Amino acid sequence: MDFNRQENEPPFTIRHSSPANADAPIGIFDSGVGGLTVFRALEKRLPNESLIYLGDTARIPYGTRSKETIERYALEDAAFIQAKNVKAIVIACNTVSSVAAHRLREACEVPVLGVIGPGSRRAVQQSRNGRVGVIGTEATIASGAYEKAMMSLRDGLKIISRACPLLVPLAEEGWMEHPVTRQVATEYLEDFRHTEIDTLVLGCTHYPILKNVIQQVMGDAVSLIDSGEAVADVVAERLCAEGLMRQSAAPRSEQFYVTDSARRFRKVAEYFLGRPIESLETIELGQL
Amino acid sequence: MDFNRQENEPPFTIRHSSPANADAPIGIFDSGVGGLTVFRALEKRLPNESLIYLGDTARIPYGTRSKETIERYALEDAAFIQAKNVKAIVIACNTVSSVAAHRLREACEVPVLGVIGPGSRRAVQQSRNGRVGVIGTEATIASGAYEKAMMSLRDGLKIISRACPLLVPLAEEGWMEHPVTRQVATEYLEDFRHTEIDTLVLGCTHYPILKNVIQQVMGDAVSLIDSGEAVADVVAERLCAEGLMRQSAAPRSEQFYVTDSARRFRKVAEYFLGRPIESLETIELGQL
Repeated sequence: MDFNRQENEPPFTIRHSSPANADAPIGIFDSGVGGLTVFRALEKRLPNESLIYLGDTARIPYGTRSKETIERYALEDAAFIQAKNVKAIVIACNTVSSVAAHRLREACEVPVLGVIGPGSRRAVQQSRNGRVGVIGTEATIASGAYEKAMMSLRDGLKIISRACPLLVPLAEEGWMEHPVTRQVATEYLEDFRHTEIDTLVLGCTHYPILKNVIQQVMGDAVSLIDSGEAVADVVAERLCAEGLMRQSAAPRSEQFYVTDSARRFRKVAEYFLGRPIESLETIELGQL
Repeated sequence: MDFNRQENEPPFTIRHSSPANADAPIGIFDSGVGGLTVFRALEKRLPNESLIYLGDTARIPYGTRSKETIERYALEDAAFIQAKNVKAIVIACNTVSSVAAHRLREACEVPVLGVIGPGSRRAVQQSRNGRVGVIGTEATIASGAYEKAMMSLRDGLKIISRACPLLVPLAEEGWMEHPVTRQVATEYLEDFRHTEIDTLVLGCTHYPILKNVIQQVMGDAVSLIDSGEAVADVVAERLCAEGLMRQSAAPRSEQFYVTDSARRFRKVAEYFLGRPIESLETIELGQL
Protein backbone atom coordinates (compact mmCIF):
# COMPACT_ATOMS: atom_id res chain seq x y z
CA MET A 1 0.00 0.00 0.00
CA ASP A 2 1.31 3.44 -0.91
CA PHE A 3 1.50 5.88 1.96
CA ASN A 4 3.08 8.61 -0.19
CA ARG A 5 -0.24 9.44 -1.78
CA GLN A 6 -1.83 12.93 -1.85
CA GLU A 7 -3.50 13.98 1.38
CA ASN A 8 -7.06 13.91 0.07
CA GLU A 9 -6.82 10.86 -2.10
CA PRO A 10 -8.00 7.73 -0.30
CA PRO A 11 -5.37 4.95 -0.41
CA PHE A 12 -7.86 2.75 -2.14
CA THR A 13 -11.60 2.64 -2.58
CA ILE A 14 -13.30 -0.50 -1.38
CA ARG A 15 -16.03 -1.13 -3.93
CA HIS A 16 -18.71 -3.71 -3.59
CA SER A 17 -19.92 -5.56 -6.60
CA SER A 18 -23.63 -4.72 -6.35
CA PRO A 19 -25.76 -1.98 -4.77
CA ALA A 20 -26.55 -2.63 -1.10
CA ASN A 21 -29.55 -4.86 -0.71
CA ALA A 22 -31.71 -5.35 2.35
CA ASP A 23 -30.92 -9.06 2.66
CA ALA A 24 -27.16 -8.46 2.80
CA PRO A 25 -25.45 -9.01 6.16
CA ILE A 26 -24.05 -6.35 8.46
CA GLY A 27 -20.25 -6.59 8.85
CA ILE A 28 -18.56 -6.05 12.21
CA PHE A 29 -14.84 -6.02 12.90
CA ASP A 30 -12.46 -5.65 15.83
CA SER A 31 -8.85 -6.48 16.58
CA GLY A 32 -10.01 -9.40 18.74
CA VAL A 33 -12.92 -10.66 20.83
CA GLY A 34 -14.03 -7.41 22.51
CA GLY A 35 -16.22 -6.47 19.54
CA LEU A 36 -18.39 -9.49 20.29
CA THR A 37 -20.27 -7.34 22.82
CA VAL A 38 -21.18 -5.11 19.84
CA PHE A 39 -22.14 -8.22 17.87
CA ARG A 40 -24.37 -9.23 20.80
CA ALA A 41 -25.97 -5.77 20.97
CA LEU A 42 -26.70 -5.82 17.22
CA GLU A 43 -28.10 -9.34 17.44
CA LYS A 44 -30.43 -8.28 20.24
CA ARG A 45 -31.51 -5.00 18.64
CA LEU A 46 -31.85 -6.42 15.10
CA PRO A 47 -32.71 -10.11 15.55
CA ASN A 48 -33.63 -10.61 11.90
CA GLU A 49 -30.31 -9.37 10.47
CA SER A 50 -27.52 -11.61 9.21
CA LEU A 51 -24.14 -10.77 10.76
CA ILE A 52 -20.50 -11.26 9.80
CA TYR A 53 -17.74 -10.79 12.37
CA LEU A 54 -14.01 -10.42 11.78
CA GLY A 55 -11.53 -10.50 14.69
CA ASP A 56 -8.00 -9.65 13.54
CA THR A 57 -6.55 -11.78 16.33
CA ALA A 58 -3.13 -12.18 14.64
CA ARG A 59 -2.41 -8.47 14.96
CA ILE A 60 -3.98 -7.74 18.33
CA PRO A 61 -3.59 -5.36 20.12
CA TYR A 62 -4.11 -2.38 17.82
CA GLY A 63 -3.93 0.06 20.75
CA THR A 64 -0.14 0.30 20.86
CA ARG A 65 0.40 0.72 17.09
CA SER A 66 1.05 3.94 15.17
CA LYS A 67 -1.85 5.76 13.49
CA GLU A 68 -0.59 4.76 9.99
CA THR A 69 -0.42 1.10 10.96
CA ILE A 70 -3.89 1.12 12.54
CA GLU A 71 -5.33 2.73 9.39
CA ARG A 72 -3.65 0.14 7.19
CA TYR A 73 -4.92 -2.75 9.32
CA ALA A 74 -8.43 -1.25 9.46
CA LEU A 75 -8.52 -0.79 5.67
CA GLU A 76 -7.52 -4.43 5.21
CA ASP A 77 -10.19 -5.54 7.70
CA ALA A 78 -12.84 -3.41 5.97
CA ALA A 79 -11.80 -4.65 2.50
CA PHE A 80 -12.26 -8.25 3.64
CA ILE A 81 -15.65 -7.51 5.18
CA GLN A 82 -16.80 -5.45 2.21
CA ALA A 83 -15.94 -8.31 -0.16
CA LYS A 84 -18.71 -10.25 1.62
CA ASN A 85 -21.21 -7.75 0.16
CA VAL A 86 -22.31 -6.30 3.47
CA LYS A 87 -24.79 -3.43 3.60
CA ALA A 88 -23.04 -1.63 6.49
CA ILE A 89 -19.83 -1.92 8.47
CA VAL A 90 -19.61 -1.46 12.24
CA ILE A 91 -16.19 -0.70 13.74
CA ALA A 92 -16.50 -2.61 17.02
CA CYS A 93 -13.22 -1.27 18.39
CA ASN A 94 -12.59 1.96 20.26
CA THR A 95 -9.03 2.36 18.95
CA VAL A 96 -10.00 2.02 15.29
CA SER A 97 -13.11 4.17 15.81
CA SER A 98 -11.00 7.01 17.19
CA VAL A 99 -8.09 6.75 14.74
CA ALA A 100 -9.36 5.45 11.42
CA ALA A 101 -13.14 5.95 11.09
CA HIS A 102 -12.74 8.95 8.77
CA ARG A 103 -10.37 7.13 6.42
CA LEU A 104 -12.65 4.08 6.35
CA ARG A 105 -15.63 6.25 5.41
CA GLU A 106 -13.62 7.70 2.52
CA ALA A 107 -12.63 4.23 1.33
CA CYS A 108 -15.91 2.31 1.70
CA GLU A 109 -19.11 2.69 -0.27
CA VAL A 110 -21.43 1.37 2.44
CA PRO A 111 -22.11 3.21 5.70
CA VAL A 112 -19.32 2.81 8.27
CA LEU A 113 -20.28 3.32 11.92
CA GLY A 114 -17.92 3.57 14.88
CA VAL A 115 -18.64 3.21 18.61
CA ILE A 116 -17.29 6.50 19.92
CA GLY A 117 -19.81 8.88 18.33
CA PRO A 118 -22.93 6.91 19.38
CA GLY A 119 -21.51 6.23 22.86
CA SER A 120 -20.63 9.88 23.40
CA ARG A 121 -24.05 11.13 22.23
CA ARG A 122 -25.84 8.72 24.51
CA ALA A 123 -23.70 9.70 27.51
CA VAL A 124 -24.26 13.40 26.94
CA GLN A 125 -28.05 12.91 26.57
CA GLN A 126 -28.19 10.72 29.66
CA SER A 127 -26.25 12.87 32.11
CA ARG A 128 -28.33 15.32 34.11
CA ASN A 129 -25.56 16.92 36.15
CA GLY A 130 -22.99 17.08 33.32
CA ARG A 131 -20.46 14.97 35.23
CA VAL A 132 -19.43 11.97 33.16
CA GLY A 133 -16.83 9.26 33.82
CA VAL A 134 -14.99 7.32 31.12
CA ILE A 135 -13.15 4.04 31.61
CA GLY A 136 -11.13 2.28 28.90
CA THR A 137 -7.77 0.81 27.95
CA GLU A 138 -4.63 2.88 28.45
CA ALA A 139 -4.56 3.68 24.71
CA THR A 140 -8.18 4.86 24.55
CA ILE A 141 -7.91 6.99 27.69
CA ALA A 142 -4.62 8.50 26.48
CA SER A 143 -6.24 9.36 23.12
CA GLY A 144 -8.94 11.46 24.83
CA ALA A 145 -11.34 10.41 22.04
CA TYR A 146 -14.48 10.23 24.22
CA GLU A 147 -13.66 13.52 25.97
CA LYS A 148 -13.24 15.33 22.65
CA ALA A 149 -16.43 13.85 21.20
CA MET A 150 -18.50 14.69 24.30
CA MET A 151 -17.02 18.18 24.71
CA SER A 152 -18.05 18.99 21.14
CA LEU A 153 -21.66 18.07 21.98
CA ARG A 154 -22.30 19.98 25.20
CA ASP A 155 -20.70 22.93 26.95
CA GLY A 156 -19.62 22.83 30.57
CA LEU A 157 -19.25 19.08 30.86
CA LYS A 158 -16.94 17.76 33.56
CA ILE A 159 -15.30 14.54 32.36
CA ILE A 160 -13.17 12.25 34.54
CA SER A 161 -11.24 9.39 32.88
CA ARG A 162 -9.47 6.32 34.20
CA ALA A 163 -7.60 3.50 32.45
CA CYS A 164 -8.53 0.03 33.80
CA PRO A 165 -6.03 -2.34 32.16
CA LEU A 166 -6.90 -5.45 34.16
CA LEU A 167 -10.56 -5.50 33.12
CA VAL A 168 -9.77 -6.81 29.61
CA PRO A 169 -7.84 -9.92 30.73
CA LEU A 170 -10.45 -10.57 33.46
CA ALA A 171 -13.23 -10.46 30.85
CA GLU A 172 -11.27 -12.74 28.51
CA GLU A 173 -10.65 -15.17 31.37
CA GLY A 174 -14.44 -15.36 31.79
CA TRP A 175 -14.38 -14.15 35.42
CA MET A 176 -17.57 -12.13 34.99
CA GLU A 177 -18.90 -12.53 38.54
CA HIS A 178 -15.66 -13.55 40.22
CA PRO A 179 -14.75 -11.93 43.58
CA VAL A 180 -11.40 -10.91 42.07
CA THR A 181 -13.20 -8.95 39.37
CA ARG A 182 -15.31 -7.18 41.99
CA GLN A 183 -12.19 -6.30 43.98
CA VAL A 184 -10.33 -5.00 40.91
CA ALA A 185 -13.36 -2.96 39.79
CA THR A 186 -13.72 -1.53 43.31
CA GLU A 187 -10.10 -0.46 43.31
CA TYR A 188 -10.22 1.17 39.86
CA LEU A 189 -13.60 2.85 40.38
CA GLU A 190 -12.62 4.22 43.80
CA ASP A 191 -11.34 7.30 41.93
CA PHE A 192 -14.89 8.15 40.90
CA ARG A 193 -16.32 7.96 44.41
CA HIS A 194 -16.19 11.67 45.23
CA THR A 195 -16.60 13.00 41.71
CA GLU A 196 -20.42 12.87 41.71
CA ILE A 197 -20.61 11.50 38.16
CA ASP A 198 -24.08 10.30 37.22
CA THR A 199 -22.98 8.58 33.99
CA LEU A 200 -20.09 6.23 33.23
CA VAL A 201 -19.01 5.40 29.67
CA LEU A 202 -17.78 1.82 29.20
CA GLY A 203 -15.12 2.96 26.73
CA CYS A 204 -13.85 -0.49 25.81
CA THR A 205 -15.87 -3.13 24.01
CA HIS A 206 -14.80 -5.74 26.57
CA TYR A 207 -16.41 -3.98 29.51
CA PRO A 208 -20.11 -4.71 28.87
CA ILE A 209 -19.54 -8.32 29.89
CA LEU A 210 -18.48 -7.00 33.32
CA LYS A 211 -21.50 -4.66 33.48
CA ASN A 212 -23.13 -6.34 36.49
CA VAL A 213 -20.04 -5.99 38.67
CA ILE A 214 -19.36 -2.42 37.52
CA GLN A 215 -22.99 -1.44 38.19
CA GLN A 216 -22.88 -2.96 41.69
CA VAL A 217 -19.65 -1.12 42.51
CA MET A 218 -20.88 2.23 41.13
CA GLY A 219 -24.40 1.93 42.58
CA ASP A 220 -27.74 2.35 40.83
CA ALA A 221 -27.55 6.14 40.71
CA VAL A 222 -24.92 5.97 37.97
CA SER A 223 -26.01 5.10 34.41
CA LEU A 224 -23.62 2.89 32.47
CA ILE A 225 -23.23 3.69 28.77
CA ASP A 226 -22.65 0.68 26.52
CA SER A 227 -21.30 2.03 23.21
CA GLY A 228 -22.23 -1.24 21.50
CA GLU A 229 -25.90 -0.76 22.39
CA ALA A 230 -25.67 2.87 21.30
CA VAL A 231 -24.23 1.98 17.88
CA ALA A 232 -26.80 -0.82 17.45
CA ASP A 233 -29.55 1.80 17.81
CA VAL A 234 -27.85 4.02 15.22
CA VAL A 235 -27.51 1.09 12.80
CA ALA A 236 -31.20 0.27 13.26
CA GLU A 237 -32.23 3.91 12.55
CA ARG A 238 -29.97 4.10 9.52
CA LEU A 239 -31.17 0.82 7.97
CA CYS A 240 -34.76 1.86 8.58
CA ALA A 241 -34.24 5.30 7.03
CA GLU A 242 -32.58 3.80 3.94
CA GLY A 243 -35.10 0.98 3.52
CA LEU A 244 -32.41 -1.61 4.18
CA MET A 245 -33.97 -3.63 7.02
CA ARG A 246 -33.89 -7.34 6.20
CA GLN A 247 -37.41 -8.52 5.32
CA SER A 248 -36.77 -12.17 4.53
CA ALA A 249 -38.55 -14.75 6.67
CA ALA A 250 -35.66 -17.20 6.14
CA PRO A 251 -33.47 -17.63 9.22
CA ARG A 252 -30.68 -15.06 9.62
CA SER A 253 -27.13 -16.30 9.15
CA GLU A 254 -23.94 -15.58 11.06
CA GLN A 255 -20.30 -16.14 10.21
CA PHE A 256 -17.16 -15.49 12.24
CA TYR A 257 -13.64 -14.99 10.87
CA VAL A 258 -10.36 -14.70 12.75
CA THR A 259 -6.77 -14.26 11.56
CA ASP A 260 -5.21 -16.48 14.26
CA SER A 261 -5.90 -18.53 17.41
CA ALA A 262 -9.33 -19.83 16.41
CA ARG A 263 -9.48 -22.24 19.34
CA ARG A 264 -8.98 -19.49 21.88
CA PHE A 265 -11.48 -17.23 20.06
CA ARG A 266 -14.12 -19.93 20.18
CA LYS A 267 -13.64 -20.38 23.93
CA VAL A 268 -13.70 -16.68 24.80
CA ALA A 269 -16.60 -16.04 22.39
CA GLU A 270 -18.74 -18.36 24.53
CA TYR A 271 -18.26 -16.08 27.54
CA PHE A 272 -19.04 -13.02 25.46
CA LEU A 273 -22.11 -14.32 23.63
CA GLY A 274 -23.30 -16.72 26.33
CA ARG A 275 -23.64 -19.47 23.70
CA PRO A 276 -21.39 -21.52 21.42
CA ILE A 277 -20.54 -20.24 17.93
CA GLU A 278 -20.66 -22.50 14.92
CA SER A 279 -19.30 -21.04 11.70
CA LEU A 280 -15.73 -19.95 12.46
CA GLU A 281 -13.02 -19.71 9.82
CA THR A 282 -9.36 -18.65 9.98
CA ILE A 283 -8.27 -16.32 7.17
CA GLU A 284 -5.13 -14.38 6.21
CA LEU A 285 -4.94 -10.61 5.92
CA GLY A 286 -2.02 -8.53 4.55
CA GLN A 287 1.49 -9.50 5.57
CA LEU A 288 1.62 -9.77 9.33
CA MET B 1 13.93 -11.24 3.89
CA ASP B 2 13.78 -14.38 1.78
CA PHE B 3 11.90 -17.27 3.34
CA ASN B 4 12.33 -19.48 0.28
CA ARG B 5 15.94 -20.20 1.11
CA GLN B 6 17.45 -23.68 1.44
CA GLU B 7 16.74 -25.40 4.72
CA ASN B 8 20.32 -25.24 6.04
CA GLU B 9 21.24 -21.83 4.76
CA PRO B 10 20.69 -19.11 7.38
CA PRO B 11 18.54 -16.21 6.09
CA PHE B 12 21.35 -13.85 6.88
CA THR B 13 24.41 -13.88 9.05
CA ILE B 14 24.65 -11.16 11.65
CA ARG B 15 28.35 -10.27 11.73
CA HIS B 16 29.92 -8.04 14.28
CA SER B 17 32.70 -5.72 13.27
CA SER B 18 35.38 -6.92 15.70
CA PRO B 19 36.12 -10.09 17.68
CA ALA B 20 34.24 -10.26 20.99
CA ASN B 21 36.09 -8.43 23.72
CA ALA B 22 35.66 -8.77 27.45
CA ASP B 23 34.62 -5.14 27.95
CA ALA B 24 31.74 -5.41 25.47
CA PRO B 25 28.22 -5.41 26.91
CA ILE B 26 25.82 -8.35 27.11
CA GLY B 27 22.72 -7.86 24.97
CA ILE B 28 19.26 -8.92 26.19
CA PHE B 29 16.01 -8.77 24.26
CA ASP B 30 12.33 -9.50 24.76
CA SER B 31 9.06 -8.53 23.10
CA GLY B 32 8.32 -6.20 26.03
CA VAL B 33 9.04 -5.65 29.72
CA GLY B 34 9.00 -9.26 30.98
CA GLY B 35 12.64 -9.77 30.08
CA LEU B 36 13.58 -7.17 32.66
CA THR B 37 13.50 -9.94 35.29
CA VAL B 38 16.27 -11.60 33.25
CA PHE B 39 18.09 -8.26 33.10
CA ARG B 40 17.77 -8.06 36.90
CA ALA B 41 19.09 -11.60 37.35
CA LEU B 42 22.09 -10.86 35.10
CA GLU B 43 22.77 -7.60 36.92
CA LYS B 44 22.76 -9.41 40.25
CA ARG B 45 24.85 -12.38 39.11
CA LEU B 46 27.32 -10.30 37.05
CA PRO B 47 27.42 -6.87 38.72
CA ASN B 48 30.48 -5.72 36.77
CA GLU B 49 29.00 -6.37 33.30
CA SER B 50 27.57 -3.67 31.02
CA LEU B 51 24.08 -4.51 29.77
CA ILE B 52 21.95 -3.52 26.79
CA TYR B 53 18.21 -4.26 26.75
CA LEU B 54 15.82 -4.18 23.81
CA GLY B 55 12.05 -4.46 24.32
CA ASP B 56 10.19 -4.75 20.99
CA THR B 57 7.13 -3.09 22.51
CA ALA B 58 5.63 -2.08 19.14
CA ARG B 59 5.14 -5.70 18.13
CA ILE B 60 4.17 -7.23 21.45
CA PRO B 61 2.88 -9.87 22.01
CA TYR B 62 4.98 -12.36 20.05
CA GLY B 63 3.08 -15.31 21.56
CA THR B 64 0.19 -15.26 19.08
CA ARG B 65 2.30 -14.85 15.90
CA SER B 66 3.29 -17.55 13.42
CA LYS B 67 6.70 -19.25 13.71
CA GLU B 68 7.97 -17.45 10.57
CA THR B 69 6.96 -14.04 11.92
CA ILE B 70 8.53 -14.69 15.34
CA GLU B 71 11.78 -15.75 13.65
CA ARG B 72 11.81 -12.64 11.49
CA TYR B 73 11.16 -10.35 14.48
CA ALA B 74 13.80 -12.15 16.56
CA LEU B 75 16.39 -11.84 13.77
CA GLU B 76 15.69 -8.11 13.54
CA ASP B 77 15.97 -7.77 17.32
CA ALA B 78 19.25 -9.72 17.37
CA ALA B 79 20.68 -7.73 14.42
CA PHE B 80 20.01 -4.49 16.29
CA ILE B 81 21.60 -5.82 19.48
CA GLN B 82 24.56 -7.32 17.63
CA ALA B 83 25.29 -3.99 15.94
CA LYS B 84 26.05 -2.69 19.45
CA ASN B 85 29.06 -5.07 19.51
CA VAL B 86 27.80 -7.23 22.35
CA LYS B 87 29.78 -10.29 23.45
CA ALA B 88 26.70 -12.47 24.05
CA ILE B 89 22.95 -12.30 23.44
CA VAL B 90 20.33 -13.49 25.93
CA ILE B 91 16.84 -14.23 24.62
CA ALA B 92 14.79 -13.06 27.61
CA CYS B 93 11.52 -14.35 26.18
CA ASN B 94 10.05 -17.83 26.45
CA THR B 95 8.25 -17.63 23.09
CA VAL B 96 11.38 -16.66 21.14
CA SER B 97 13.50 -19.13 23.09
CA SER B 98 11.21 -21.99 22.14
CA VAL B 99 10.64 -21.00 18.50
CA ALA B 100 13.69 -19.15 17.19
CA ALA B 101 16.78 -19.92 19.34
CA HIS B 102 18.19 -22.34 16.76
CA ARG B 103 17.82 -19.89 13.89
CA LEU B 104 19.38 -17.09 15.95
CA ARG B 105 22.39 -19.29 16.77
CA GLU B 106 22.86 -19.95 13.05
CA ALA B 107 22.69 -16.25 12.26
CA CYS B 108 24.76 -14.73 15.08
CA GLU B 109 28.50 -14.98 15.65
CA VAL B 110 28.34 -14.43 19.41
CA PRO B 111 26.84 -16.95 21.84
CA VAL B 112 23.03 -16.84 21.98
CA LEU B 113 21.38 -18.15 25.16
CA GLY B 114 17.68 -18.77 25.70
CA VAL B 115 15.75 -19.24 28.95
CA ILE B 116 14.11 -22.60 28.33
CA GLY B 117 17.22 -24.82 28.33
CA PRO B 118 18.73 -23.39 31.54
CA GLY B 119 15.33 -23.29 33.28
CA SER B 120 14.58 -26.89 32.33
CA ARG B 121 17.99 -28.18 33.45
CA ARG B 122 17.68 -26.44 36.80
CA ALA B 123 14.17 -27.81 37.37
CA VAL B 124 15.23 -31.36 36.56
CA GLN B 125 18.27 -31.13 38.85
CA GLN B 126 16.21 -29.62 41.66
CA SER B 127 13.29 -32.05 41.71
CA ARG B 128 13.72 -35.03 44.02
CA ASN B 129 10.40 -36.76 43.36
CA GLY B 130 10.32 -36.12 39.58
CA ARG B 131 7.02 -34.23 39.77
CA VAL B 132 7.41 -30.80 38.21
CA GLY B 133 4.84 -28.07 37.57
CA VAL B 134 5.09 -25.46 34.80
CA ILE B 135 3.16 -22.19 34.65
CA GLY B 136 3.29 -19.77 31.73
CA THR B 137 1.28 -17.85 29.15
CA GLU B 138 -1.26 -19.71 27.04
CA ALA B 139 1.21 -19.72 24.09
CA THR B 140 4.10 -21.15 26.11
CA ILE B 141 2.00 -23.84 27.76
CA ALA B 142 0.40 -24.78 24.42
CA SER B 143 3.89 -25.08 22.84
CA GLY B 144 4.95 -27.69 25.41
CA ALA B 145 8.52 -26.33 25.17
CA TYR B 146 9.43 -26.88 28.83
CA GLU B 147 7.88 -30.35 28.88
CA LYS B 148 9.87 -31.40 25.81
CA ALA B 149 13.13 -29.95 27.15
CA MET B 150 12.70 -31.59 30.59
CA MET B 151 11.56 -34.95 29.19
CA SER B 152 14.74 -35.11 27.11
CA LEU B 153 16.83 -34.66 30.26
CA ARG B 154 15.32 -37.27 32.60
CA ASP B 155 13.19 -40.35 32.22
CA GLY B 156 10.00 -40.89 34.19
CA LEU B 157 9.26 -37.25 34.93
CA LYS B 158 5.67 -36.32 35.67
CA ILE B 159 5.00 -32.78 34.40
CA ILE B 160 1.83 -30.80 35.08
CA SER B 161 1.26 -27.52 33.21
CA ARG B 162 -1.16 -24.64 33.67
CA ALA B 163 -1.60 -21.37 31.76
CA CYS B 164 -2.03 -18.34 34.07
CA PRO B 165 -2.99 -15.48 31.72
CA LEU B 166 -3.87 -12.92 34.42
CA LEU B 167 -0.43 -12.97 36.05
CA VAL B 168 1.17 -10.92 33.25
CA PRO B 169 -1.23 -7.95 33.45
CA LEU B 170 -1.11 -8.08 37.28
CA ALA B 171 2.71 -7.89 37.17
CA GLU B 172 2.59 -5.03 34.66
CA GLU B 173 0.06 -3.19 36.84
CA GLY B 174 2.62 -3.38 39.65
CA TRP B 175 0.29 -5.31 42.00
CA MET B 176 3.11 -7.46 43.36
CA GLU B 177 1.76 -7.88 46.90
CA HIS B 178 -1.86 -6.97 46.21
CA PRO B 179 -4.61 -9.15 47.74
CA VAL B 180 -6.06 -9.58 44.24
CA THR B 181 -2.80 -11.10 43.04
CA ARG B 182 -2.80 -13.52 45.96
CA GLN B 183 -6.38 -14.52 45.18
CA VAL B 184 -5.67 -15.01 41.47
CA ALA B 185 -2.53 -17.04 42.21
CA THR B 186 -4.45 -19.18 44.71
CA GLU B 187 -7.11 -19.92 42.12
CA TYR B 188 -4.64 -20.81 39.35
CA LEU B 189 -2.33 -22.86 41.57
CA GLU B 190 -5.21 -24.79 43.14
CA ASP B 191 -4.75 -27.31 40.30
CA PHE B 192 -1.34 -28.25 41.70
CA ARG B 193 -2.59 -28.90 45.23
CA HIS B 194 -2.97 -32.66 44.94
CA THR B 195 -0.25 -33.28 42.37
CA GLU B 196 2.62 -33.49 44.89
CA ILE B 197 4.98 -31.46 42.73
CA ASP B 198 8.14 -30.40 44.56
CA THR B 199 9.31 -27.97 41.85
CA LEU B 200 7.46 -25.27 39.89
CA VAL B 201 8.94 -23.64 36.77
CA LEU B 202 8.07 -19.95 36.38
CA GLY B 203 7.75 -20.34 32.61
CA CYS B 204 7.17 -16.67 31.84
CA THR B 205 9.69 -13.91 32.38
CA HIS B 206 7.03 -11.79 34.11
CA TYR B 207 6.43 -14.23 36.93
CA PRO B 208 9.58 -13.72 39.02
CA ILE B 209 8.24 -10.35 40.15
CA LEU B 210 5.28 -12.24 41.69
CA LYS B 211 7.59 -14.82 43.28
CA ASN B 212 6.73 -13.94 46.89
CA VAL B 213 3.02 -14.43 46.38
CA ILE B 214 3.51 -17.62 44.35
CA GLN B 215 5.87 -19.05 47.01
CA GLN B 216 3.38 -18.26 49.79
CA VAL B 217 0.55 -19.93 47.89
CA MET B 218 2.62 -23.03 46.99
CA GLY B 219 4.27 -23.34 50.41
CA ASP B 220 7.96 -23.68 51.24
CA ALA B 221 8.16 -27.36 50.24
CA VAL B 222 7.97 -26.39 46.55
CA SER B 223 11.06 -24.92 44.85
CA LEU B 224 10.38 -22.17 42.34
CA ILE B 225 12.58 -22.17 39.24
CA ASP B 226 13.40 -18.72 37.84
CA SER B 227 14.65 -19.26 34.28
CA GLY B 228 16.25 -15.80 34.34
CA GLU B 229 18.46 -16.77 37.27
CA ALA B 230 19.24 -20.06 35.57
CA VAL B 231 20.33 -18.39 32.32
CA ALA B 232 22.37 -15.80 34.28
CA ASP B 233 24.39 -18.67 35.79
CA VAL B 234 24.94 -20.16 32.35
CA VAL B 235 26.07 -16.79 30.96
CA ALA B 236 28.51 -16.41 33.87
CA GLU B 237 29.98 -19.89 33.28
CA ARG B 238 30.29 -19.28 29.57
CA LEU B 239 31.99 -15.88 29.90
CA CYS B 240 34.35 -17.32 32.47
CA ALA B 241 35.23 -20.32 30.28
CA GLU B 242 35.88 -18.08 27.27
CA GLY B 243 37.88 -15.48 29.22
CA LEU B 244 35.25 -12.86 28.47
CA MET B 245 34.41 -11.59 31.98
CA ARG B 246 34.64 -7.81 32.09
CA GLN B 247 37.80 -6.80 34.01
CA SER B 248 37.59 -3.02 33.76
CA ALA B 249 37.36 -1.09 37.03
CA ALA B 250 35.35 1.67 35.28
CA PRO B 251 31.65 1.67 36.17
CA ARG B 252 29.47 -0.68 34.11
CA SER B 253 27.00 0.93 31.70
CA GLU B 254 23.40 0.13 30.86
CA GLN B 255 21.18 1.18 27.98
CA PHE B 256 17.53 0.41 27.27
CA TYR B 257 15.82 0.51 23.87
CA VAL B 258 12.13 0.13 23.02
CA THR B 259 10.25 0.25 19.73
CA ASP B 260 7.15 2.01 21.11
CA SER B 261 5.45 3.32 24.28
CA ALA B 262 8.61 4.48 26.08
CA ARG B 263 6.61 6.24 28.79
CA ARG B 264 4.77 3.07 29.75
CA PHE B 265 7.98 1.02 29.58
CA ARG B 266 9.71 3.42 31.96
CA LYS B 267 6.86 3.13 34.47
CA VAL B 268 6.59 -0.65 34.36
CA ALA B 269 10.41 -1.05 34.38
CA GLU B 270 10.44 0.61 37.80
CA TYR B 271 8.24 -2.18 39.22
CA PHE B 272 10.42 -4.81 37.59
CA LEU B 273 13.84 -3.45 38.54
CA GLY B 274 12.80 -1.76 41.78
CA ARG B 275 14.60 1.41 40.67
CA PRO B 276 14.28 4.09 37.97
CA ILE B 277 16.00 3.60 34.61
CA GLU B 278 17.93 6.41 32.96
CA SER B 279 19.11 5.76 29.40
CA LEU B 280 16.00 4.84 27.42
CA GLU B 281 15.72 5.38 23.68
CA THR B 282 12.94 4.63 21.17
CA ILE B 283 14.12 3.03 17.94
CA GLU B 284 12.52 1.59 14.77
CA LEU B 285 12.82 -2.01 13.65
CA GLY B 286 11.69 -3.48 10.30
CA GLN B 287 8.29 -2.49 8.98
CA LEU B 288 5.68 -2.98 11.67
